[in-house]
Amino acid sequence: MQNIYVDEHLIKQAIEDRRFFHQHPELSGEEFETCAFIRNRLEALKIEILDFEPPSVIGFIKGTKGNKTIALRADIDALPITEEGDKPYLSKNPGVAHMCGHDGHTATLLAVAEWLSIKGNEVEPNIVLIFQSAEEITPSGADRLIKQGVLENVDAIFGIHLWQGMEKGKIGLTHGPMMASIDDFEIMIQGSGGHGSMPHETVDPIYVATHVIQSLQSIISRKLNPIDSGVISVGKIEAGTTYNIIPDTAKLIGTIRALTPEAVATLQNKMVQLTEGICKAFDAKGQVDFIIGTPPLVNHAKESHFVESVIRQSFGDDVFELVDPVMGGEDFSYYLQNKPGAFIFVGMGGEKSMYPHHHPKFDIDEEVIPDAIKLFIEIAKKYQ
Amino acid sequence: MQNIYVDEHLIKQAIEDRRFFHQHPELSGEEFETCAFIRNRLEALKIEILDFEPPSVIGFIKGTKGNKTIALRADIDALPITEEGDKPYLSKNPGVAHMCGHDGHTATLLAVAEWLSIKGNEVEPNIVLIFQSAEEITPSGADRLIKQGVLENVDAIFGIHLWQGMEKGKIGLTHGPMMASIDDFEIMIQGSGGHGSMPHETVDPIYVATHVIQSLQSIISRKLNPIDSGVISVGKIEAGTTYNIIPDTAKLIGTIRALTPEAVATLQNKMVQLTEGICKAFDAKGQVDFIIGTPPLVNHAKESHFVESVIRQSFGDDVFELVDPVMGGEDFSYYLQNKPGAFIFVGMGGEKSMYPHHHPKFDIDEEVIPDAIKLFIEIAKKYQ
Amino acid sequence: MQNIYVDEHLIKQAIEDRRFFHQHPELSGEEFETCAFIRNRLEALKIEILDFEPPSVIGFIKGTKGNKTIALRADIDALPITEEGDKPYLSKNPGVAHMCGHDGHTATLLAVAEWLSIKGNEVEPNIVLIFQSAEEITPSGADRLIKQGVLENVDAIFGIHLWQGMEKGKIGLTHGPMMASIDDFEIMIQGSGGHGSMPHETVDPIYVATHVIQSLQSIISRKLNPIDSGVISVGKIEAGTTYNIIPDTAKLIGTIRALTPEAVATLQNKMVQLTEGICKAFDAKGQVDFIIGTPPLVNHAKESHFVESVIRQSFGDDVFELVDPVMGGEDFSYYLQNKPGAFIFVGMGGEKSMYPHHHPKFDIDEEVIPDAIKLFIEIAKKYQ
Amino acid sequence: MQNIYVDEHLIKQAIEDRRFFHQHPELSGEEFETCAFIRNRLEALKIEILDFEPPSVIGFIKGTKGNKTIALRADIDALPITEEGDKPYLSKNPGVAHMCGHDGHTATLLAVAEWLSIKGNEVEPNIVLIFQSAEEITPSGADRLIKQGVLENVDAIFGIHLWQGMEKGKIGLTHGPMMASIDDFEIMIQGSGGHGSMPHETVDPIYVATHVIQSLQSIISRKLNPIDSGVISVGKIEAGTTYNIIPDTAKLIGTIRALTPEAVATLQNKMVQLTEGICKAFDAKGQVDFIIGTPPLVNHAKESHFVESVIRQSFGDDVFELVDPVMGGEDFSYYLQNKPGAFIFVGMGGEKSMYPHHHPKFDIDEEVIPDAIKLFIEIAKKYQ
Repeated sequence: MQNIYVDEHLIKQAIEDRRFFHQHPELSGEEFETCAFIRNRLEALKIEILDFEPPSVIGFIKGTKGNKTIALRADIDALPITEEGDKPYLSKNPGVAHMCGHDGHTATLLAVAEWLSIKGNEVEPNIVLIFQSAEEITPSGADRLIKQGVLENVDAIFGIHLWQGMEKGKIGLTHGPMMASIDDFEIMIQGSGGHGSMPHETVDPIYVATHVIQSLQSIISRKLNPIDSGVISVGKIEAGTTYNIIPDTAKLIGTIRALTPEAVATLQNKMVQLTEGICKAFDAKGQVDFIIGTPPLVNHAKESHFVESVIRQSFGDDVFELVDPVMGGEDFSYYLQNKPGAFIFVGMGGEKSMYPHHHPKFDIDEEVIPDAIKLFIEIAKKYQ
Repeated sequence: MQNIYVDEHLIKQAIEDRRFFHQHPELSGEEFETCAFIRNRLEALKIEILDFEPPSVIGFIKGTKGNKTIALRADIDALPITEEGDKPYLSKNPGVAHMCGHDGHTATLLAVAEWLSIKGNEVEPNIVLIFQSAEEITPSGADRLIKQGVLENVDAIFGIHLWQGMEKGKIGLTHGPMMASIDDFEIMIQGSGGHGSMPHETVDPIYVATHVIQSLQSIISRKLNPIDSGVISVGKIEAGTTYNIIPDTAKLIGTIRALTPEAVATLQNKMVQLTEGICKAFDAKGQVDFIIGTPPLVNHAKESHFVESVIRQSFGDDVFELVDPVMGGEDFSYYLQNKPGAFIFVGMGGEKSMYPHHHPKFDIDEEVIPDAIKLFIEIAKKYQ
Repeated sequence: MQNIYVDEHLIKQAIEDRRFFHQHPELSGEEFETCAFIRNRLEALKIEILDFEPPSVIGFIKGTKGNKTIALRADIDALPITEEGDKPYLSKNPGVAHMCGHDGHTATLLAVAEWLSIKGNEVEPNIVLIFQSAEEITPSGADRLIKQGVLENVDAIFGIHLWQGMEKGKIGLTHGPMMASIDDFEIMIQGSGGHGSMPHETVDPIYVATHVIQSLQSIISRKLNPIDSGVISVGKIEAGTTYNIIPDTAKLIGTIRALTPEAVATLQNKMVQLTEGICKAFDAKGQVDFIIGTPPLVNHAKESHFVESVIRQSFGDDVFELVDPVMGGEDFSYYLQNKPGAFIFVGMGGEKSMYPHHHPKFDIDEEVIPDAIKLFIEIAKKYQ
Repeated sequence: MQNIYVDEHLIKQAIEDRRFFHQHPELSGEEFETCAFIRNRLEALKIEILDFEPPSVIGFIKGTKGNKTIALRADIDALPITEEGDKPYLSKNPGVAHMCGHDGHTATLLAVAEWLSIKGNEVEPNIVLIFQSAEEITPSGADRLIKQGVLENVDAIFGIHLWQGMEKGKIGLTHGPMMASIDDFEIMIQGSGGHGSMPHETVDPIYVATHVIQSLQSIISRKLNPIDSGVISVGKIEAGTTYNIIPDTAKLIGTIRALTPEAVATLQNKMVQLTEGICKAFDAKGQVDFIIGTPPLVNHAKESHFVESVIRQSFGDDVFELVDPVMGGEDFSYYLQNKPGAFIFVGMGGEKSMYPHHHPKFDIDEEVIPDAIKLFIEIAKKYQ
């Protein structure tokens, strides 16, 4: 896609930046070198840096009107994955790699920062630039920044993801639920063990667990609105030590996903009710604990329609794609729980980006970076 | 088996009697013609007839010592089955037939009555002769007679069954549980119906029923002592009317069997607990009703060992067989709940009796009737 | 909503027509009086009537350009429901009523026909007016018309539903899956019956059915993409006759819904695989038969975007609503399997239409009929 | 129970021997010190020692007639249990203890050996004295001795167990199945893992395992004759590693018990059929492996009736008890698979023996040892 709008220099530098980040990936919460790079650049651009806890960096640029403030966000952390492949700028940090594309997000937002520092006179609202730590883990870096007040004067927030699952040349989003919640759970079933030859003197927690796991299926099949999406997966079951002893307990752990807070609540509430009730029916004791992760990412309709119109006007009707929600998660959802805004996929799937996110051979297609830069700039310019 | 002990006349008449009963079968509770026959015979034999409600007949013979009283019991009812076959004395009552052998029991006890009326001087205890109505149905004829006081002065009671499932030439019993309880149940699962396309707005009673039925298996597999025997069978399930409507309710009916009162209690209690508990876990309401039938038939050890010694002494060690319990039921169990006693199988399986009880071609082997008569007489003679 | 576009006369007559149809509802396949009314009107308007089997009526109007042909469709059948309420134009046909709003659809399309007969010079494409019988039943009236060739020269087809589930004042659609498939199924589980006290000599089809039903839940919870929507509901289970007999067979009937042909295929294939496989594992024989109903209604993206732009331009951006799919079905889906097109909801939910479709108190809000008329007209005018 | 039959000296020495063995317990297969003690004693008694692999010792005593040969067996191994309590002759071998009573069995058979060496002229048959290693483990010491030919010339074999589960003062056995088989199993369910948020791309082995485990219950509840006894217990389930990954496999291990070879076969065959069939239905692969342990111990009727008559004659009718089978196992079953014989419980339950076998506080009641000695002697004397 031709993109004269963003000039050659800006693009060249963005790609150089991205490769630097790619070679120097840092794990969630440890992005100190990355932050130093960002700070240096923002300082060089004379962009004000707000006072937030590292390793996140928050820049601020006053708008020409300044009666509104929007935040643009990039996540900056890498993953504990060993990169595979032979490109010249492979990760130099063994066991750590930018296998989700956050290097591209960071470079994009730095380019946007540079553009704003030069062409700020074209932009009415104040701009908060969020270079956010720790997207990939719990506790979430977004949640932390919000608690520190990053959204205090923000009217709307926008974020992007360079997205392998969407065709290169397309940019889009949903007008509502877009990415799933991620919560983990632990179920403890307390029975009463004994010898395998005398089951009648025991409460067999393995047998009880089969009823519990079967009942979890029915939450999806019978209790969730079929229009909604949700997943409950037991990832691990631990019970017993040997052939002939019925154990005291069975422990199940797993994950649940849903696209709306209501669906998350349905899944969790039914999971507790069924586990406790079924265990009790069998004289066992069931307990469910949730390890709350990321809420579902739900775009705000007004902002998502604004973004749609930006895409249609700035890139063409053909570029816009109404996205199907995905069951992956993203901590940008925290921002959208607090303020209006929208999250946007910039498609890059194709020959140059053919492995899914988190795959050891994942790569971004750098050719879509200019569009990502342009998208943020257009949002900044058009937001009222 | 040769049997000079009981004389030719007695045997000939017993077989004639049996064929008369076979030709004139009457359903449970309607054995009036049969009773008239029995009363006439007892009166002819000058045997006292006690005053009990028809259609049962209770005879009484004073013993030489008379410090103890034993009851000998025959059941007299037939079954609502159309007999098949071509023997000359087929049932003349369409749709009703002695397909369980009670005709043989009645004839046997009449022969015993005749012997006692002649040789009473050889018998020390008083003898109560119970010709009992309604063994095959609920409410039980045995239970009814007991409530009328038939066991009041009885010290012990003995009964026999001519048994196709045991080899001809063998006579035997257990020293404990011998025949199963029979109780029926009805489970009502009250859910909340709705359209098949919107399961999340319903409580689907058919789905809940699958958990309940699965849990019933676990009562047998996990809650009953493996040494004990028990069965829970759902015979019928009724739920719903059409393709696309989730119904409000599911109704299950079935039967339970066990060999000891403790096992019966375990099955019933767990059935209630699991049904109610599981239904509640799924927001449904489960209710279990029992249609109490026949208790398990459990021989009393002292009396069963007495019978074993009678068999060994009067018929030989080879004739005695320690019986495996059977899952069929028999309302003789009511007598054994109230008084000591034992129930005995007189084997007749073989060429002349090859179809199981209740089969439309079932027949007794009349050649074992002399042994049945002799068994009762020996019990009467040897009981102290 | 003010609507000067469609003149007073047209609106008044549409409402009168609608009330006439409401008072004279006819069941699916029996819409002969309704068709007579339609034919008379079209003839009065000098609109050509194409030769299709009754009780559907197909009108044809030549466009000014005529190089393209679009079809506009109304369904005309009523439901076997007894209407409740007290409006002056209640159904006069006992047990039959327009409880889905097809009376409104028919009146709308007649008004469109009249407008076209007058203002046809404003419309470039040829217009096929489909007054379709038998939307509510299987076999589908749409399918029948297609087989008779109604779509032969049609380039695109559009249909509407006055929709209680959408707020009055909104008009909208999806850009893909919009309404569910409807297929019914019958599962026969052939076991081997016997006496309830001897389960080991049987293959208990009721028990096997519990595994089959449980496994059906897992098709939704484990085999359907969580992003997709699907339902499998067992509506009825029939097995057994009495307490103590394990029956030979269990029969389950139910319905399945999904929003895409791929999801329908997944549900059906897995249902067959699991039923047959599980039954076989238990020595039973499982057979699944599908009663194929209506395919999922999936709008074609190009035509749905065209309709979106028509709505935005003719009614305003505020009126357009991107619709969430619904699990109800609609045989308009057959047209969309054959030709490009889109189905549109005209919102009428509110005080005047507060009961859901098929409810005995369901009513349409006649105030939205002018918009429905206008929508069809604008589609006809703008289609290229 | 007074027991003048066996003289004071013999009893005193038996108790001393028993305490020696109790203080010097050895694990299965390692009974070398125990064997040295036995050999020394037999040699001192001038009893011929047959040539069998240690650590078992086989003695041989010629009978007066010698036309028949019977074997009497004691098992000699201890358990890997740390004894609790404060008796003066506690185990001196840390972590190893005679917590099943084999010390008593060994001392009993040594006393029998001494009696035979003195009073051999009262005994007609040849006597093989089997001091058997490794009863508690698989592979079984009995099986090993049989393969070495220990039963070659043996006409019948008898063994005892001092039995805590039976009242002191009672001696008894069954006339058929008496102790359960012990076989272990391993079930591997091979599914196909993936991310917890995308169950539709996996074959979830944990979910499949719930159907398999549920189906195992039905083997007991629906496929085993209710009169028979059987247990299938899953002791351990292993599947998965973390919250959000559906694993490739689930592994179940457990134990099965039954009282007859036919029941064992039913359990095993159905387990294989159901596991393989259910897994296949779900696109997984199920494999069942059995670790064959001990067959069910089934007394031979002729020999068990012989033992019953010995008990009745030598101890009194009150002492004999017809035993209910137990679900524990015993490798004496191997002998009974090869030769006629019977296994006998010598009751010792009461104040002096109140903890069950294998409990760390288990103890035998030494006062029943004289009866055990007498029982073996009477069997030897009366066998013809």
